[in-house]
Amino acid sequence: MKAKIIITPKKAVLDPQGKTVQTALEHMGHTGIKAVHVGKYLEIELAGTDVEAARQALNAAAHQFLSNPVIEDYHLEICP
Amino acid sequence: MKAKIIITPKKAVLDPQGKTVQTALEHMGHTGIKAVHVGKYLEIELAGTDVEAARQALNAAAHQFLSNPVIEDYHLEICP
Repeated sequence: MKAKIIITPKKAVLDPQGKTVQTALEHMGHTGIKAVHVGKYLEIELAGTDVEAARQALNAAAHQFLSNPVIEDYHLEICP
Repeated sequence: MKAKIIITPKKAVLDPQGKTVQTALEHMGHTGIKAVHVGKYLEIELAGTDVEAARQALNAAAHQFLSNPVIEDYHLEICP
């Protein structure tokens, strides 16, 4: 079983990394880029098969210490 | 139009950040975790509507400077 967690800065929070990537893309000649957001991606390989239990455990982990809920949002996806 | 790029370290490459997250999860009482891989997530908002052109441009950008093809893989997804 595999879990994927995507952690992104909240839209209201300044994202200097995203701004830098956007500027770099523009300097490299890529036009038509409105915004770039840079986040973290976690892929977790799990031993069990209980999707619901894994979702609960990882939701708690993502909320408590994998993300900073003050400035970041996360999206959890579990692939059985 | 929105593009999502996920950049992960190649499976053969040492991933100290993933190992650290795995150890942290275990210390927090989460069991049954076989492996953790930590990567980058880029969300790019595009002005145009030509999916194929965007795919080509972003594939080139991802290969040339958003990822390091020696040690990283990337996955590009475009949502029209």
